[in-house]
Amino acid sequence: MIVVQKYGGSSVGDVERMKRVAERIVGTRNEGHDVVVVVSAMGDTTDELVDMAARINRRPPQRELDILLTAGERISMSLLAMAIDDLGVSARSFTGSQAGIITDTVHGKARILAVTPERVREALDAGHVVIVAGFQGVSRDTHDITTLGRGGSDTTAVALAAALEADACEIYTDVDGVYTADPRIVPAARKVERLSYEEMLELAAQGAKVLQVRSVEFGRNHGVRIHVRSSFNSSEGTWIVPQEDMVEDAIISGVAHDTSEAKVTVVGVPDRPGVAAGMFTALADANINVDMIVQNISSEGRTDISFTLPRGEIDQATELLDARLPEIGAERLIVNPSVAKVSLVGAGMKTHPGVAARMFAALSRAGVNIQMISTSTIRVSVIIDDAKVDDAVRAVHAEFGLGADALIEEQGAG
Amino acid sequence: MIVVQKYGGSSVGDVERMKRVAERIVGTRNEGHDVVVVVSAMGDTTDELVDMAARINRRPPQRELDILLTAGERISMSLLAMAIDDLGVSARSFTGSQAGIITDTVHGKARILAVTPERVREALDAGHVVIVAGFQGVSRDTHDITTLGRGGSDTTAVALAAALEADACEIYTDVDGVYTADPRIVPAARKVERLSYEEMLELAAQGAKVLQVRSVEFGRNHGVRIHVRSSFNSSEGTWIVPQEDMVEDAIISGVAHDTSEAKVTVVGVPDRPGVAAGMFTALADANINVDMIVQNISSEGRTDISFTLPRGEIDQATELLDARLPEIGAERLIVNPSVAKVSLVGAGMKTHPGVAARMFAALSRAGVNIQMISTSTIRVSVIIDDAKVDDAVRAVHAEFGLGADALIEEQGAG
Repeated sequence: MIVVQKYGGSSVGDVERMKRVAERIVGTRNEGHDVVVVVSAMGDTTDELVDMAARINRRPPQRELDILLTAGERISMSLLAMAIDDLGVSARSFTGSQAGIITDTVHGKARILAVTPERVREALDAGHVVIVAGFQGVSRDTHDITTLGRGGSDTTAVALAAALEADACEIYTDVDGVYTADPRIVPAARKVERLSYEEMLELAAQGAKVLQVRSVEFGRNHGVRIHVRSSFNSSEGTWIVPQEDMVEDAIISGVAHDTSEAKVTVVGVPDRPGVAAGMFTALADANINVDMIVQNISSEGRTDISFTLPRGEIDQATELLDARLPEIGAERLIVNPSVAKVSLVGAGMKTHPGVAARMFAALSRAGVNIQMISTSTIRVSVIIDDAKVDDAVRAVHAEFGLGADALIEEQGAG
Repeated sequence: MIVVQKYGGSSVGDVERMKRVAERIVGTRNEGHDVVVVVSAMGDTTDELVDMAARINRRPPQRELDILLTAGERISMSLLAMAIDDLGVSARSFTGSQAGIITDTVHGKARILAVTPERVREALDAGHVVIVAGFQGVSRDTHDITTLGRGGSDTTAVALAAALEADACEIYTDVDGVYTADPRIVPAARKVERLSYEEMLELAAQGAKVLQVRSVEFGRNHGVRIHVRSSFNSSEGTWIVPQEDMVEDAIISGVAHDTSEAKVTVVGVPDRPGVAAGMFTALADANINVDMIVQNISSEGRTDISFTLPRGEIDQATELLDARLPEIGAERLIVNPSVAKVSLVGAGMKTHPGVAARMFAALSRAGVNIQMISTSTIRVSVIIDDAKVDDAVRAVHAEFGLGADALIEEQGAG
């Protein structure tokens, strides 16, 4: 019985917390499991290293930045192994490279191509607890050290769980599961017991910061059962499981919100084939992560295209598009950095028409104006003024009766 | 023309110093050299990591401690590469493992078994400045990360210079070369221009803290020309070269002193074969580094054996020997923690008799009592009261005319 556990930076933020994590690991081990632990850098280590790099070179080469950042997990993984050893249980730590996390060469946000955990298996067979550095791997082509991007330790854990055919992948975090909405905004929000990968993907992508999106994709592709839970208590968290393991789909699983994006509208785009493609190819080539894209019908041969992107990338994007406006033949750009996205997610929505309409009506009653709309089969997202985000989340949460009181009514005894 | 440069922790102690080091490296590169740089951890990083480990586990497993400590060079090497990049020159950093520093598995003080610097060569051929993490390697047998012990970056540099057949190995430090004596004690001490490996080995082993002993051994075994110089100015330092490159042997190269040792005397040891061997085998098994050993003739079937060892190991040694006194058949131990060792080193002393006698006479005139004597063909060492160490060094230095004024007289135009 192999269990993979992942502890984030705040769970190992100082020596005392690290000792508590070691006790939890030894506890799992004493229950008879083989334990593989994926650990992030301690507390703010990664941010501090990024700051130091910025003081040396305003545009540090990505290869070297990756080497620098991986020092953070090197410190946390060896200290955690020492803390476990101090409790009388032998532990062996391995870097991403040593643990066989093979990636492409996109420094700063590499993708895992393969996992070859021979050394991890040998160490487990020899009776050790195994600690693996999260967030990092080694490039198959250049043999250089790579990092997987923010939240990459989640993906390391799920990928290792898949490769080791682990019974579960436990993601320890500072919240005790996935909630129907952010409890700081909606006090009545309740913890969700189970979610399908698809629902979690929509929630994660739409701003529930519990899990990195790619880790959920990895889990879905390899059937890894993921348990998101608190590192500060022992209660059950939220399980993320295959669709077929869901007893019954809740109509709505939760409301997510995201205030990290900005909106750009390109006004007066000629309504010709290839114009939009050219625009978004240029943005993709510059590694700008465009999220929601909306284009409405055109009038007089011209249309407006709006999209959202991370606020940090807005200068680069507008610079790039401004330079191409003549070539595109568009009139001008409108940039709105103060938007929020609110999303309603639920697998049951597929078979329950009218969910979007109910959501829009609830927003309207709460005085929230909708700027953009985008939907998938299990999600409805709207872009609104970010000053209204709390009102919007509360209104939608209440409309669909997601609060603790509503639980019995919605789900019955299940 | 390959040049290997090694910068110690104080040379890269903060961002500003690191930028200065980067400028020096780029300068060497602009002179037309291929440059390989070996770098230590910044400032007190290693000590801080050791402290953190001690807070987690009073006896941290050595394998994990090595992983932890190597994070220090990982940070300094990537930051240094960024600083060089910031000056418009491309740089690539490599860990000890990536640079092919292959060691045995003695964690904490591993020995280099082989150097296979293929990736370093490829990066040089591609036009990059190469930065290599000092102090670390990878075990041939276990593929685990190892460290080479304090000062190990010197050995990394010399070993790489040997493997790359570099034209020179420059060791940058906070002093500007090897002096005839410690200038803080003997203001008239002068910088030595050239030393043979053998002389440097005696000086380094006898307490001149400029270079790690093993790096000099490595240099001698592979004929690497080592240049010890200051990272704060551009003047020539001290060259350490093969004996045959010495124009003429100076009778005396310098006076070294060491106040880090203690003296133990085992009184009344039965004068039987095997007794001394048993005693020192027991100390060696406990990893206690015995330095000087003196045994005089016996009287009435018993003799006294004295030896020196690092002060930090004195408790362990006396505990071990006390327990064995009955078995050894000796009477008692006398421990003296307040001793100093003063050594006179010079290749010319082989062919100039009377050097030891002149040294002893000079010490006598200075009122310094000699407690132990030990000699090699190019060295005379004495153990004295450590309160007298400054007097002793000055007296010996003056006796052999090692000061700046004496230079012309001793060495002529050479």
